[in-house]
Amino acid sequence: MTIPGNGDLASLGEFGLISRIQALLPQSEEVILGPGDDAAIVKAVDGYVVATTDMAVEDIHFRRDWSTAKQIGSKIAAANLADLVSKGARPTALLVAFAAPADLPVEWALDLTLGLRDEAAKTGASIVGGDIARAEKIVISIAALGSLDGREGVRRSGAKVGDLVVLAGTTGLSAAGLALLSSDIDVALGEFNELRTAHLTPDVNYDLALALAIAGAHSMCDVSDGLLADLGHIAQASGVKCQIDATKLDLSKLQGLATKIGVDPMRWALTGGEDHAFVATISPDVDLPDGTFVIGEVLVGSGVDVLGTDVSKWQAGHDHFHRII
Amino acid sequence: MTIPGNGDLASLGEFGLISRIQALLPQSEEVILGPGDDAAIVKAVDGYVVATTDMAVEDIHFRRDWSTAKQIGSKIAAANLADLVSKGARPTALLVAFAAPADLPVEWALDLTLGLRDEAAKTGASIVGGDIARAEKIVISIAALGSLDGREGVRRSGAKVGDLVVLAGTTGLSAAGLALLSSDIDVALGEFNELRTAHLTPDVNYDLALALAIAGAHSMCDVSDGLLADLGHIAQASGVKCQIDATKLDLSKLQGLATKIGVDPMRWALTGGEDHAFVATISPDVDLPDGTFVIGEVLVGSGVDVLGTDVSKWQAGHDHFHRII
Repeated sequence: MTIPGNGDLASLGEFGLISRIQALLPQSEEVILGPGDDAAIVKAVDGYVVATTDMAVEDIHFRRDWSTAKQIGSKIAAANLADLVSKGARPTALLVAFAAPADLPVEWALDLTLGLRDEAAKTGASIVGGDIARAEKIVISIAALGSLDGREGVRRSGAKVGDLVVLAGTTGLSAAGLALLSSDIDVALGEFNELRTAHLTPDVNYDLALALAIAGAHSMCDVSDGLLADLGHIAQASGVKCQIDATKLDLSKLQGLATKIGVDPMRWALTGGEDHAFVATISPDVDLPDGTFVIGEVLVGSGVDVLGTDVSKWQAGHDHFHRII
Repeated sequence: MTIPGNGDLASLGEFGLISRIQALLPQSEEVILGPGDDAAIVKAVDGYVVATTDMAVEDIHFRRDWSTAKQIGSKIAAANLADLVSKGARPTALLVAFAAPADLPVEWALDLTLGLRDEAAKTGASIVGGDIARAEKIVISIAALGSLDGREGVRRSGAKVGDLVVLAGTTGLSAAGLALLSSDIDVALGEFNELRTAHLTPDVNYDLALALAIAGAHSMCDVSDGLLADLGHIAQASGVKCQIDATKLDLSKLQGLATKIGVDPMRWALTGGEDHAFVATISPDVDLPDGTFVIGEVLVGSGVDVLGTDVSKWQAGHDHFHRII
């Protein structure tokens, strides 16, 4: 049992905290009714709403000794927003459910809010509501809403034989950053900072995912479970085979750390999760948006074939219950 | 550390569990894209979506030794759906984020799903997506979406001087049920079952809330924090005073248990949370829907005045961080 002190959630109380949080949240003109009521009202201009949810649990998805509250907020918002744009939806609103111990410093909760708010603002979305509860460990659960603005949604199931497999972003950086944070190897101050940052505060190119959708992508996923796993989801949902050439993947940022700790950087690039790059399939007749590159093609068959490396020895992707008991 | 066994989440795995859950979830015709993709697509027929979120944490909001998984699912779905209908919105979709220990029996997770699904079905809503994570204690976080079908939303801030204060449902039953479950008093088998059930599986009259909205309620809340607290939210948001006559409240179901354990049943009726009755303010010129009754009126001023009993000795409503450290 922790004695509540000055400046923690117990001393401020639930309604005091809500009031402090609300003061940090500007609302876009698409928000008809924002935080402070039983529910929010948001425009859905074309008569459809795209919705997703993603939850993060302390010591499973994040650690308070590795990440600032703002980084944690930014990362969990990004996971939700990336899911929306991968369907071609422009994010409009986030709802945030937050559970925390009573001795959590108020400043931590406010910094979390800033991280959530600022990441959402990159896409034009507002935080329109939420819920606060007590728990032994911090849990942040977000639901994100978006608009297709009259477009068709891009599904996992839309890949067509003959499509190119296209990647937007670099995979493996977050997994490499996690490996670095988890290891006790000696690195110089600032060395591999890009990898550490990729794990703690992913830089998601939302516009590029929307550009792929507008260009006519037939299917798309964000790479949250790992490239092989997420491409496998597309292959399975679409009833096709995705064949990729691993030599097309950019390992340049991974090589240094991989050599130092003696792992194959290809494993990070193919199976590392939480990168929030985007993998799509699209007709070869389309002009690809700048920043995307072709890594393979869609064939008759099933599953994912990888040319240029042997992946049979790796487990593909992340399973919350299988991996770590 | 628990060794995973046959029939628990660890042995089935995240993707196996998702597949078992999805098989339980029919989708309404308003769902364009349901579970299994990165996001769902749901119709928002009038160009607006109403959205809310509510989270429940094991041993804070529910106990596995008091409630079945199905009861827990039903109750947390009801909390979200009641928030929607209190704004005059017809529920269309739920998103469910679920964290649990790896040794949780698969059957528990499936029964939870049935509870969520069946409660949602009472309003016509479908479970359109979710997220699953690992945690030491169970956390269920729901976001619920609804449609106003062309109506204006009913806000907390709409109460007008001269309105009647109207209650739909009975307050205090859930608090009395909680008092019974928490006490070690001897009761005959089946005695006070209605109170126990009111706490474990609230019976929410969604249609009555929508009827109040359609009848033109100026403001409405569901009574989740307690009647005084929720009416206080309306008074504050609307800049008015709400005066209620406590003698209008129905204590008949509370009296027996209250006498037995020596408490004032009025306290349960005025400050007990989680009843998901609805309190509204509405013009006196309107024909009230059957099942609602007048408990007071809206006056110039601020706060909540209670006639017929002395409430000064009670703390009004529930604060997650103040109440229990």
